[in-house]
Amino acid sequence: MDKITMEKENLEKTALTVRALSMDAIQKANSGHPGLPLGAAELGAVLYGEILKHDPSDPKWVDRDRFVLSAGHGSMFLYSLLYLSGYKDVTMEDIKTFRQIGSRSAGHPEYGMAGGIETTTGPLGQGFATGVGMAIAEAMLAARFNTPEDTVVDHYTYVLCGDGCLQEGVSSEASSLAGHLGLGKLIVFYDSNKITIDGSTELSFTEDVATRYRAYGWQVLNGSMYDFDEIVRLVVEAKAETAKPSLIVLKSIIGKGAPHKQNTADAHGAPLGADEVTAAKAALGIVGDFFVAPESTAYFKVKQVEWKKNHEDWQKKFESWSKKNPEKRSEWDLFYSDAYTPVDMPHYAVGDKVATRAAGNKALGAIAAVNLNLVGGSADLKGPNAVGFTSRPFSKSDRMGRYLHFGVREFAMAAVSNGITLHGGLRAFCSTFMVFADYLRPALRLSALMKQPVIYVLTHDSIYVGEDGPTHQPVETIASLRLIPGVTVLRPGDAEETAMAWEMAMENRNGPTVLALSRQNITVFPKDDPDWKNTIRTGAYIVKKAENPDTVIIAAGSEVNLALSAAAIAEKNGKKVHVVSILCRELFERQPDSIKTAIIPFGVRIVAAEAGVKCGWEGLADAVFSIERFGESGPADKVAEHLGFTAESLAKLV
Amino acid sequence: MDKITMEKENLEKTALTVRALSMDAIQKANSGHPGLPLGAAELGAVLYGEILKHDPSDPKWVDRDRFVLSAGHGSMFLYSLLYLSGYKDVTMEDIKTFRQIGSRSAGHPEYGMAGGIETTTGPLGQGFATGVGMAIAEAMLAARFNTPEDTVVDHYTYVLCGDGCLQEGVSSEASSLAGHLGLGKLIVFYDSNKITIDGSTELSFTEDVATRYRAYGWQVLNGSMYDFDEIVRLVVEAKAETAKPSLIVLKSIIGKGAPHKQNTADAHGAPLGADEVTAAKAALGIVGDFFVAPESTAYFKVKQVEWKKNHEDWQKKFESWSKKNPEKRSEWDLFYSDAYTPVDMPHYAVGDKVATRAAGNKALGAIAAVNLNLVGGSADLKGPNAVGFTSRPFSKSDRMGRYLHFGVREFAMAAVSNGITLHGGLRAFCSTFMVFADYLRPALRLSALMKQPVIYVLTHDSIYVGEDGPTHQPVETIASLRLIPGVTVLRPGDAEETAMAWEMAMENRNGPTVLALSRQNITVFPKDDPDWKNTIRTGAYIVKKAENPDTVIIAAGSEVNLALSAAAIAEKNGKKVHVVSILCRELFERQPDSIKTAIIPFGVRIVAAEAGVKCGWEGLADAVFSIERFGESGPADKVAEHLGFTAESLAKLV
Repeated sequence: MDKITMEKENLEKTALTVRALSMDAIQKANSGHPGLPLGAAELGAVLYGEILKHDPSDPKWVDRDRFVLSAGHGSMFLYSLLYLSGYKDVTMEDIKTFRQIGSRSAGHPEYGMAGGIETTTGPLGQGFATGVGMAIAEAMLAARFNTPEDTVVDHYTYVLCGDGCLQEGVSSEASSLAGHLGLGKLIVFYDSNKITIDGSTELSFTEDVATRYRAYGWQVLNGSMYDFDEIVRLVVEAKAETAKPSLIVLKSIIGKGAPHKQNTADAHGAPLGADEVTAAKAALGIVGDFFVAPESTAYFKVKQVEWKKNHEDWQKKFESWSKKNPEKRSEWDLFYSDAYTPVDMPHYAVGDKVATRAAGNKALGAIAAVNLNLVGGSADLKGPNAVGFTSRPFSKSDRMGRYLHFGVREFAMAAVSNGITLHGGLRAFCSTFMVFADYLRPALRLSALMKQPVIYVLTHDSIYVGEDGPTHQPVETIASLRLIPGVTVLRPGDAEETAMAWEMAMENRNGPTVLALSRQNITVFPKDDPDWKNTIRTGAYIVKKAENPDTVIIAAGSEVNLALSAAAIAEKNGKKVHVVSILCRELFERQPDSIKTAIIPFGVRIVAAEAGVKCGWEGLADAVFSIERFGESGPADKVAEHLGFTAESLAKLV
Repeated sequence: MDKITMEKENLEKTALTVRALSMDAIQKANSGHPGLPLGAAELGAVLYGEILKHDPSDPKWVDRDRFVLSAGHGSMFLYSLLYLSGYKDVTMEDIKTFRQIGSRSAGHPEYGMAGGIETTTGPLGQGFATGVGMAIAEAMLAARFNTPEDTVVDHYTYVLCGDGCLQEGVSSEASSLAGHLGLGKLIVFYDSNKITIDGSTELSFTEDVATRYRAYGWQVLNGSMYDFDEIVRLVVEAKAETAKPSLIVLKSIIGKGAPHKQNTADAHGAPLGADEVTAAKAALGIVGDFFVAPESTAYFKVKQVEWKKNHEDWQKKFESWSKKNPEKRSEWDLFYSDAYTPVDMPHYAVGDKVATRAAGNKALGAIAAVNLNLVGGSADLKGPNAVGFTSRPFSKSDRMGRYLHFGVREFAMAAVSNGITLHGGLRAFCSTFMVFADYLRPALRLSALMKQPVIYVLTHDSIYVGEDGPTHQPVETIASLRLIPGVTVLRPGDAEETAMAWEMAMENRNGPTVLALSRQNITVFPKDDPDWKNTIRTGAYIVKKAENPDTVIIAAGSEVNLALSAAAIAEKNGKKVHVVSILCRELFERQPDSIKTAIIPFGVRIVAAEAGVKCGWEGLADAVFSIERFGESGPADKVAEHLGFTAESLAKLV
């Protein structure tokens, strides 16, 4: 980087090409956001050409720099540069079919659609926080694998954000955390164009961003978006500060190059219009549609050779390191394979009274002792969430720590967890009270959309929270989590099921898993299905079998015990009742009928029981024993009684 | 305030009593958070005794100062002081039954349980943001009603927050907005005890809070929690700065007075234990249980007379003002009655193609032109959300503005809207894209819990968002909103229904209303029910009637048109199909059977159609035409086609 030859003309032509492709793609789609790609084209050129350590021929190279376009609406910025710098996934055809179904150039960058898209962005602020997670992952892996002789993990995380991202609370949370952790290899570019959708930032955003970031413990640098030398110099300065993340504020003009719309909100989020595109092209000297400057193509050809060489050098270093450190290498392989190493789980006896959060802690401890790539923590509820699997926190001074003190920052916690998992090499879990899943929901949605296997440990999962009252008692929360496509919600019925749930969570590599765990003690119950540890992987199994049952109670979580009590009462009255534990309703519903009817016999009355809203159970049950209102403050049992949520009432319904 | 005689001993005895009551109540409940009430008792004494303008004999006095305990877990702080200062709702019996069902002293302060509880707190950060809303409301009402001669609106909003509140993103968003708006009458006390649940703030929160707040445009003052004179002096200083909100950082000791636990996380959130309570009482010189210092009682007796006198003086001023300003007075009565004045709604012709967001804008414009106490805005989506009902924004320099440029801060927007509505005199609406309801969900939950009639305008309500792709296309979002007890979700089928929906939203004074509106144009359809404008108030009505129907399609929002097309196809194949528009499923489900069967005949096959997950429709329909996956980026119709969500497919299902 210190020997960079700045080939200004090439960079200028690259910026010109970014503008040309962005305007045309957006105009052709008749949809999109030209403001950022036009306004930040110069940064794009120098970032992809001179700053990023990457190899477009291998977008998954583990030691590449990460780049996150947090301002995801400016997606054509990313696609143009991926195309120009040689990422094969993004073709000219993709650019010409921007925002069409099947194109890799989706409206907002979608993780998995093309190499070089490091995360899905669009919901503002989250890309920033996800970038913080990537930088944490880098620091953790560097500490673990580098040796005094060889640094095999040594890359930067770059983020490009705009005014919108900086207004969102999630970026504030993540920035405070990043400053606290001293993430020196996180470099954020702030496209400061002073325009948002409503108009000037004078309307709503007049704080002193630079001072705020200094208060978080960041280095703040200032420059112009349109000075290549300066940008490179600032990045050098950012890298020189190894103990703090850096915010590089780049003054810019939104939609730069569109003669009548630049520097106005009109340039932000709608196509420029045919006339303005024509005028812009005339002003910029662009001829034809989807123009690509030959100088840019030639420039990146040369770069590609250089990058490949760098990558090969790294590969050689990596192999030499592997020879010298065979144990580290096998650990590396384990980390990057993302495989789960099964462990001996704690055992329980029937009748033990154990909160499933406590059982979760034991399972987590067992898993984490063997699966060293599992890292995570809680939003300041280490004790209450029962996730103190290690006493060694990740900190400025201890990069080998695996416990993350996220602070009271649920949303950033989840977005950071996405970043850690997206980075590769590590698996993240995070935890808070179930009711505060609402605070992190937007990041959980992105975990699901990106199929990232983040594990969400959500304890205090019902009105049995008790005294803390309705603000802390989930009623609708579990149902709301089950709604999100691709989220696996596991609500174990006792300590034994909890161990199974943790195992299933670790094995689920195809999306996020929620572990819904109880605050209160729950009795470990006998299980009539001798093969329950296998059957439960279908999402459900028979806990209590009856000959020719007339009713099946299907219950989740702490309500399995309630169902067993209700069944006992009902059986005294001559009923014959099956009790089924539904660990995961969505999973069970996806099973073939043969499996489903083996667990819930056909033609029998089905009563579902859960201490929450009925929504979702109606598809499965004839009657639902539920809670359709907010809870109250009182001891857990009193609250349940007050709400009529007792075994007696359930027995009556049966 | 400048003539205060500081009666230190009385204040000390009051602080002592706060400690005594808090320890004992928490110990008796065997649950609760002693850390804050013990740590901030001195502030409580001077705040309730010397600082607050209030009259406990009339907790609803409109010109009282507002106090928000943002750190709601410290609820015994509030209850002790309400009790001591003379709020009749909180009795010693309530304190002795802290955290029991039926007690007004719930685990966290619950709005509506007792006078003096200005908002429900507990979910951290939100109280702070709600306080910002109260200060906005004060500024708006002061500008409207005060005259050069008389200031009838002139009160402060005080907030007490801790480290947790300041870590949450929502407080960051709200603080940036408060600084931007120059809310000089907002004064926030920061209980800076450097301890959170996990332990020292050194674990996760080492930023420079004071500098951050200066960057937001706040005045920051520093002092000790245990110096009455200083606190009073700092409040005087805070009031003197009329152009900026003030943050008063008070260094404190969590759990102060508990000899072994103070200044540790152990004091935060669990009873001190019998031994520690005994030790604390011995150290503090407290004798007996639920001790109340007679000096404190006597002190507040005197204060009550003073307060009553102040209140009466205000009442006289108010009456004199009323005489001089009869028009203002009748407007005042209208504002504070919270009544909706019906308006002429815009008319549409069958066949008109209008996005329901655009129809919403027209309805909002008509309503706001007459109902001047309606204020609100959008999280930087004024144009896209179509809520530009006025061009006059509320700002530092124009307090008569009614449009709120919230910035890209959805969560703070909703919490601020709660604050505006809680304040009284005003009604708030707020808006963003439907999918970003996830960002504000925790505040919507509190709107519902507090039964606050905030109106949430959520546009772009389905996959018909189109090109912006899955990050911007709600699929599970509407269902997730319907889950929250007390939230009324209205999803109108065309422009005419939208006008009705806005009217119903204005009339609903018992909780929040969500208006789910379309981005795309929708054809205004003919309505077979001649009385549909009345029938729709049941939540549903028959759009298209068939004689002896064999199928009823129940559909919501833009899917009513889809259902009409599907019915036309099915009828060509000999089917007889009713089409019912479900404006509000929850409302309809609560109707008596007679009404329900008049709209959906008994014994007929019911097919539900909505462009989202099926969850919740299964209880009403035999089959659900739904979307159980995330969407894709493409033109709206292409996306629908790609997902098989077409009239043809629905017709087949019928």
